[in-house]
Amino acid sequence: MSMGLRTGDQYVEGIKTRNKAKIYVLGKRVHDVTTNLFLKPSVLSFKATFDAAFEEDTRDLARVYSPFAGEEVNRFNSIHMGPQDLVAKVKLLRKLSHKTGTCFQRCVGWDALNTLYIVTKKLAEKEGKGIYYKNFIKYLEYVQRRDLALAGAMTDVKGVRPLKPSEQPNPDAYVRVVEERDDGIVVRGAKANITGIAVVDEVVVMPTRAMTEKDEVYAISFAIPLDTEGVTVVVGRQLNDARRLEEGEIDGLPYMFNHEGLLILEDVYVPWDRVFMYREWKWAGVLVEVFSAYHRQGYAGCKSGLGDVIIGAAYNLAKQIGVADKPHVREKLTEMVFLNETMYSAGLAASWEGKKLVEGDGGWWVNPMYANVTKHLVTRFPYEVSRLAHDIAGGLLGTAPSEFDLKNEEVGKLVAKYLQGVPEFTAEDRLRMLRLLENTSISVAYLVESVHGAGSPQAQRISMERIYDFYTVEKIAKSLARMGQRKADPRVEPHKPTDSEKA
Amino acid sequence: MSMGLRTGDQYVEGIKTRNKAKIYVLGKRVHDVTTNLFLKPSVLSFKATFDAAFEEDTRDLARVYSPFAGEEVNRFNSIHMGPQDLVAKVKLLRKLSHKTGTCFQRCVGWDALNTLYIVTKKLAEKEGKGIYYKNFIKYLEYVQRRDLALAGAMTDVKGVRPLKPSEQPNPDAYVRVVEERDDGIVVRGAKANITGIAVVDEVVVMPTRAMTEKDEVYAISFAIPLDTEGVTVVVGRQLNDARRLEEGEIDGLPYMFNHEGLLILEDVYVPWDRVFMYREWKWAGVLVEVFSAYHRQGYAGCKSGLGDVIIGAAYNLAKQIGVADKPHVREKLTEMVFLNETMYSAGLAASWEGKKLVEGDGGWWVNPMYANVTKHLVTRFPYEVSRLAHDIAGGLLGTAPSEFDLKNEEVGKLVAKYLQGVPEFTAEDRLRMLRLLENTSISVAYLVESVHGAGSPQAQRISMERIYDFYTVEKIAKSLARMGQRKADPRVEPHKPTDSEKA
Amino acid sequence: MSMGLRTGDQYVEGIKTRNKAKIYVLGKRVHDVTTNLFLKPSVLSFKATFDAAFEEDTRDLARVYSPFAGEEVNRFNSIHMGPQDLVAKVKLLRKLSHKTGTCFQRCVGWDALNTLYIVTKKLAEKEGKGIYYKNFIKYLEYVQRRDLALAGAMTDVKGVRPLKPSEQPNPDAYVRVVEERDDGIVVRGAKANITGIAVVDEVVVMPTRAMTEKDEVYAISFAIPLDTEGVTVVVGRQLNDARRLEEGEIDGLPYMFNHEGLLILEDVYVPWDRVFMYREWKWAGVLVEVFSAYHRQGYAGCKSGLGDVIIGAAYNLAKQIGVADKPHVREKLTEMVFLNETMYSAGLAASWEGKKLVEGDGGWWVNPMYANVTKHLVTRFPYEVSRLAHDIAGGLLGTAPSEFDLKNEEVGKLVAKYLQGVPEFTAEDRLRMLRLLENTSISVAYLVESVHGAGSPQAQRISMERIYDFYTVEKIAKSLARMGQRKADPRVEPHKPTDSEKA
Amino acid sequence: MSMGLRTGDQYVEGIKTRNKAKIYVLGKRVHDVTTNLFLKPSVLSFKATFDAAFEEDTRDLARVYSPFAGEEVNRFNSIHMGPQDLVAKVKLLRKLSHKTGTCFQRCVGWDALNTLYIVTKKLAEKEGKGIYYKNFIKYLEYVQRRDLALAGAMTDVKGVRPLKPSEQPNPDAYVRVVEERDDGIVVRGAKANITGIAVVDEVVVMPTRAMTEKDEVYAISFAIPLDTEGVTVVVGRQLNDARRLEEGEIDGLPYMFNHEGLLILEDVYVPWDRVFMYREWKWAGVLVEVFSAYHRQGYAGCKSGLGDVIIGAAYNLAKQIGVADKPHVREKLTEMVFLNETMYSAGLAASWEGKKLVEGDGGWWVNPMYANVTKHLVTRFPYEVSRLAHDIAGGLLGTAPSEFDLKNEEVGKLVAKYLQGVPEFTAEDRLRMLRLLENTSISVAYLVESVHGAGSPQAQRISMERIYDFYTVEKIAKSLARMGQRKADPRVEPHKPTDSEKA
Repeated sequence: MSMGLRTGDQYVEGIKTRNKAKIYVLGKRVHDVTTNLFLKPSVLSFKATFDAAFEEDTRDLARVYSPFAGEEVNRFNSIHMGPQDLVAKVKLLRKLSHKTGTCFQRCVGWDALNTLYIVTKKLAEKEGKGIYYKNFIKYLEYVQRRDLALAGAMTDVKGVRPLKPSEQPNPDAYVRVVEERDDGIVVRGAKANITGIAVVDEVVVMPTRAMTEKDEVYAISFAIPLDTEGVTVVVGRQLNDARRLEEGEIDGLPYMFNHEGLLILEDVYVPWDRVFMYREWKWAGVLVEVFSAYHRQGYAGCKSGLGDVIIGAAYNLAKQIGVADKPHVREKLTEMVFLNETMYSAGLAASWEGKKLVEGDGGWWVNPMYANVTKHLVTRFPYEVSRLAHDIAGGLLGTAPSEFDLKNEEVGKLVAKYLQGVPEFTAEDRLRMLRLLENTSISVAYLVESVHGAGSPQAQRISMERIYDFYTVEKIAKSLARMGQRKADPRVEPHKPTDSEKA
Repeated sequence: MSMGLRTGDQYVEGIKTRNKAKIYVLGKRVHDVTTNLFLKPSVLSFKATFDAAFEEDTRDLARVYSPFAGEEVNRFNSIHMGPQDLVAKVKLLRKLSHKTGTCFQRCVGWDALNTLYIVTKKLAEKEGKGIYYKNFIKYLEYVQRRDLALAGAMTDVKGVRPLKPSEQPNPDAYVRVVEERDDGIVVRGAKANITGIAVVDEVVVMPTRAMTEKDEVYAISFAIPLDTEGVTVVVGRQLNDARRLEEGEIDGLPYMFNHEGLLILEDVYVPWDRVFMYREWKWAGVLVEVFSAYHRQGYAGCKSGLGDVIIGAAYNLAKQIGVADKPHVREKLTEMVFLNETMYSAGLAASWEGKKLVEGDGGWWVNPMYANVTKHLVTRFPYEVSRLAHDIAGGLLGTAPSEFDLKNEEVGKLVAKYLQGVPEFTAEDRLRMLRLLENTSISVAYLVESVHGAGSPQAQRISMERIYDFYTVEKIAKSLARMGQRKADPRVEPHKPTDSEKA
Repeated sequence: MSMGLRTGDQYVEGIKTRNKAKIYVLGKRVHDVTTNLFLKPSVLSFKATFDAAFEEDTRDLARVYSPFAGEEVNRFNSIHMGPQDLVAKVKLLRKLSHKTGTCFQRCVGWDALNTLYIVTKKLAEKEGKGIYYKNFIKYLEYVQRRDLALAGAMTDVKGVRPLKPSEQPNPDAYVRVVEERDDGIVVRGAKANITGIAVVDEVVVMPTRAMTEKDEVYAISFAIPLDTEGVTVVVGRQLNDARRLEEGEIDGLPYMFNHEGLLILEDVYVPWDRVFMYREWKWAGVLVEVFSAYHRQGYAGCKSGLGDVIIGAAYNLAKQIGVADKPHVREKLTEMVFLNETMYSAGLAASWEGKKLVEGDGGWWVNPMYANVTKHLVTRFPYEVSRLAHDIAGGLLGTAPSEFDLKNEEVGKLVAKYLQGVPEFTAEDRLRMLRLLENTSISVAYLVESVHGAGSPQAQRISMERIYDFYTVEKIAKSLARMGQRKADPRVEPHKPTDSEKA
Repeated sequence: MSMGLRTGDQYVEGIKTRNKAKIYVLGKRVHDVTTNLFLKPSVLSFKATFDAAFEEDTRDLARVYSPFAGEEVNRFNSIHMGPQDLVAKVKLLRKLSHKTGTCFQRCVGWDALNTLYIVTKKLAEKEGKGIYYKNFIKYLEYVQRRDLALAGAMTDVKGVRPLKPSEQPNPDAYVRVVEERDDGIVVRGAKANITGIAVVDEVVVMPTRAMTEKDEVYAISFAIPLDTEGVTVVVGRQLNDARRLEEGEIDGLPYMFNHEGLLILEDVYVPWDRVFMYREWKWAGVLVEVFSAYHRQGYAGCKSGLGDVIIGAAYNLAKQIGVADKPHVREKLTEMVFLNETMYSAGLAASWEGKKLVEGDGGWWVNPMYANVTKHLVTRFPYEVSRLAHDIAGGLLGTAPSEFDLKNEEVGKLVAKYLQGVPEFTAEDRLRMLRLLENTSISVAYLVESVHGAGSPQAQRISMERIYDFYTVEKIAKSLARMGQRKADPRVEPHKPTDSEKA
């Protein structure tokens, strides 16, 4: 087995023994994320990305040869060498959603690697600044060979939204350099909504918006181990999160969940060789654009995978009460399929129509129009899919008794009697499937994250508006309207006000 | 003060002292629903319907003179005496949503009273069976004078959905009479999704579908106190319910919630004077139709009221980060308003266009077409309103730290620093508003119940299809198409196959 | 019969003999609109509003007592004396759509009368300028007693859209006073999109937007006979209009259509007693607001009536090929019904919830929020209804042979053979119904006018945003979020940058 | 120049001189389609597919080497040799929409060729019937070398829709063999909605549905020259078609249009070597499935190309009145782009994810799921794009004067004065662009054909439901819900009615 490929267990073991990171959950410091009831589902979900490299149905997709490491690596740490890699990404993500039933949290770090590969190389090509690329490639090899679990941290807390970083009342509202030293830099600030942050080995930090010269201390990118001095993580709450702390095994299904957290950097030291961009304010916008398109494409895979789970659950629930073959139920299932496959197909187009941005190997980027289309679909369709799933599932989705009632000595039998539908399934089957549907179709991963991950809907609209060639389509329309012909006819020349009109 | 009007505190006191009912929450028997952490938010929400009769902004709406009690009663126990009462209903419900931020659970019982008023009177008028009406009026007076808190129980557990009650493998899949005695009847079965069931004084039971003669033991309606021997309630789980059990004051906002439960009747005795329909299988369908239109109309009020809360929360969150005046944010807020007011206006139409179904006083029913339109809108628009609210609120909606982090000695200050937007609001303000939005826009009350309450979307479609006059519009179309003229022209008479064609 | 009520024939006769108006159709002057092939369908549609006062099914709705004329008048020239009149309006409009299958063009004049009733009375009440009201009441009586056909002209051509009237390069881009005389005023400019303009007796002109003092020469309202010196009408084209010029009887079905036109005023003299507003720039915005809400409400009636025709046609076409009972066809028909009744119910709410704006009799205005909701629904749902109708109708809707093929000696029999579906209907039946559906569901009246009539979608959005009480819902949300409590906790007070942060 | 590539002029010349075909337009026989005013726009649009092979911007896309002809051929007659050809198809179609502003009518024939390539080869491979393939390849060479213009004819008139061909009251409701001769077969029936049928050299006929053994005389495929004895074409009407017969140059813009027609076969003789399938009832369904997926994919190209034209026109009209930079206008333009690119990206996915169905060269089929997704999007989004375009264009879209008014001596100057917006554009510019938008966004090609081409929406739903793997997603959901565990717990085993319950 290649050294670059860890098993899921190896990942868990690694995370368990790293214990200096200051992680808070529900107001309490966590010392072992692998046993903490709140975070364990996240660890298991992240773990699935490692196991995928060894499981039969994903093995081929989940590992790929890296020319940088000179060996097979986990695809989640790989650089895309062609459209087929971009396609493999969305296919792998769809399959991992099937295994986890939630977000598996490893895409941001992956997209960060590919983004920095392009941006640092561009900085070398266009600005002659080769040091960033050198630092990055060294880091890439390090990450690939150790098969590290990475988070990517882009979104700053942003304070007053319309103000630029340098205009904020709180100067730390965006992560910035507060000190430059011979051996590195010292940074301060906070990154919000960081997926999987509490259960990774390292985090790659990037700027979150285009910047002006005045913002240059904010135009920085670097990577640090999570247990670096000065790093604090405050894990965010999620829908139904408190159920994880119960003793149950059904009401919190599926067993895996993602988490997001607030990453706080209090004067954290970063050595120079971990710095990939420093005060390069002109390139901050480029970096964001490259990253966000990568990340928007990815949603095609994971969200349609989650959609599959939701469709499967709705279909099974329809069977449990004997209505799966009713026309209106089939109509709704088909609509869910249609919405789900639309998202996926846009992501495939974004992948197949990828383009190469840099010289030499790799540097394949997604097609930005279709990547934005993908994500924009994802900001809408999951709510529709959820609604249809809830429709099929029946009102019991919002009123079902707890598993503790089912197991209760006195009322358990009654619950079992009255929750059963067709004889082929038990009340427990029904409860299990209802809970799975509840916790997938009404989850942060499927709803809020679908809206905001990789940028809010407005961000995609701005991108699509910018990418679309209005100039050319206007020219086409003018040509079809034969607008050029007007010059021949003086009668219809632009009207000039007469004296009487001017009066 | 009229004897018929209780204060909220009097309601709570009454519920507290009633303690024989067997109520289960999360697998445990509850002895005092008013102090149980899971159910207390429901008690408070129900309580708001009593307080409304004394609060300045709702006093006039919430009380109304009853000719049956001969005094002012709480509107929630009143019979509609004209369209103005139907309008008052939706206006009152909208206001109560503002006070509670959730479902206040008292509509089903109210709609049950109005339904039984009509159906029992019809049974007297059409079938000459006056006993039901006599029983009902006596019960109505009793309820009005004591200002009782009622639940209505219609939805059976239904077992194998496409089968009729008499065809079910489990004969108790629909509530039925198992014994007829001199002094009353004995019933068995279970009702699902019963709103507010654990915090009421009495429950009114009704059949849930049209029936055939074979189903006649299922065609029954009656009322019983909740603490009747043989009654068990298993309270259902809800999104984020476990947060209610925490010590916090923010993460579970608002402080009020509804609940639904499974009502189980194990051979429960009902005296004859509490029976409002007995083996009247021909009238089961009528009863369901009357009830469901009433209940569908009501959603105009409560769901648009919840929509107001969600719009208010989204608007405030936009202000907290300084974007409330951005065009795309205003566009989204306006869209939410449009969707919300569409639902409400359909409900107003259903009320103003109400019709009288029985002789004598009262018996005003809603316009069934617009009532169905209302509810059908409600099965769709809340998901859209939620999506837009989530869009405006930002990703933090799904990733915000807990209140315990904010209050933590070590990280509280950091959280406070980094969650703040504009200076006018604190991080706590932001957290409070995010939690309110989370727990309203992603609640059973606003989503699942909007789909399934008063019948699933398909139920409204069947109603609308049946009510709409396809025959007449076809005739109109034929007339405009001058279709009658064809007879004049033999050339276009229906084609008859020739011998050659038959070959 | 009351003198104030003309029959349709009397209207046609009146229009026919008025022949001085300069009307252009397809580049040619028209001298008799009642025989002109292009305009005759418009005359017939307008005529239906007169006939309605005598036809059994509309007689009661279409006539109403007027205290101004002291007799029964056609409702289309009446002032609303209460909510019941507003309700009668939408009910009448729905029925007239059934009779015409198109826009019948008499609402704008009607809404203009009601608007001027309120605005001139307000000008008397608030500004003490009683002359406008006096002029208007005199004119109202005149119109009511003669049962005149009125057009209302509001929309100016507007030139450069974002500029105010006084800022336009073309000063005539909005209608204005160019001369003030002792006996009246002289006006110039043009009004666009004027419904029914070529077939009316008189036209009431109103300003089209809020104005500033600099725009005061544009802030005018008045009425003139259509055949006034200086008036030119250029009739606009419509979809499929050229078919009206053919000899056929099927392809252009239904037989009635509306038209819009460009009304050009070249230094037209208006006597003082026909002036209802003169340089009252402060009141221009009010007038537009009052008018547009009236007109937006009306769409509930006429567009849902057209929707009925389209549903009827689609239903019949489904029957013609034997699929009317297929689940997916019924699903689509039901969806059409739902969309159609949603529009209608919003209009009913706007009517029932109307309010009185002036002292004394009349002056009942619609509820502006629901009127805007109505129109905004109308800007969306008809396209959806059309799409569903096209779906049901089959591809033949866009490919059916002409009636001339059906009547052709050589191919007629073949067409008759192959276009027939079930034996109960002939090919001609099918062609007739397809053409009816084509010319209703893809008409200016149902599509473009639904978007733009009474203001474009953005106009309604601005209105809804302004009417909705964001302040109050924010307060409600703050209250539910217990936001006031924050003051107790100094830890979460607004963050102030430390010296280090300021560095 | 390759012999296999004709110029547009050569195509026109060829069509002109072929004059035996019996073609009817508006009830009259047409002898020269190239000069007939109704059909000329169709000829010009078809011609564009030939010119594309010589025009710089499409030359590379529009020609491709054919191993069958052994030379470069027009892509519209080519067999797909890999995914890149499928991608080239949608890219070429998008560009041709830009050149024509309408449907260019050559895709059905193309898709028919590729379908028959696969199906005849399959018949050889699976059934050992090599004759069909031999016939087809010979025909393919013939078509490619002469660069013939083909129509494809699939849709039968279908009579009573739910009945199978053999059950129809009219046995000719589906095209069938009525005689088998030594030298060929004789066929009878009619095909409806045949795109471009009046302006092609030959037509390829295919069955339109899956069949049973009883329907075997209907399970046939063959090709004939259009001017074969017994062939009659009745051209269908279209929106605004009569404008083509006017003398104008603006109101009917663009200058190109498609047409569809009814193809009637009255006992037409087909020689054996032109027969590609004969009584192969088991293969009729396969053929339809292969063809329809091909054709559904294609809509991604042509409809998004038309969408570009509509977006360009709307954008220009916004500029003409000075509002192109207003937020709400940009919002709408961006929404149009999003919808348009969604359709396109699904088609790209269907192409890139194509699969090979037969041995040897070629036989690349599209991915059927994404092809169905593409078409299903196309049945919805164009109506939305049109609505948005109409919103931006303003009401004038439905009310603009004719070009004849603009050119009129008396009113032309007035029209010119009042229709102008910003000084950079004239009234004629505005009229031209409005007419282009009217005739593209409200055309059969963009609306009705988008719904029904390549099968109605229901056809795609049936396909998507069949293709999607419900079994697997249910298994995934069961696995995530840990449903297998229930066996361990006897308490929740399926409920069995007790004796008491059975009572």
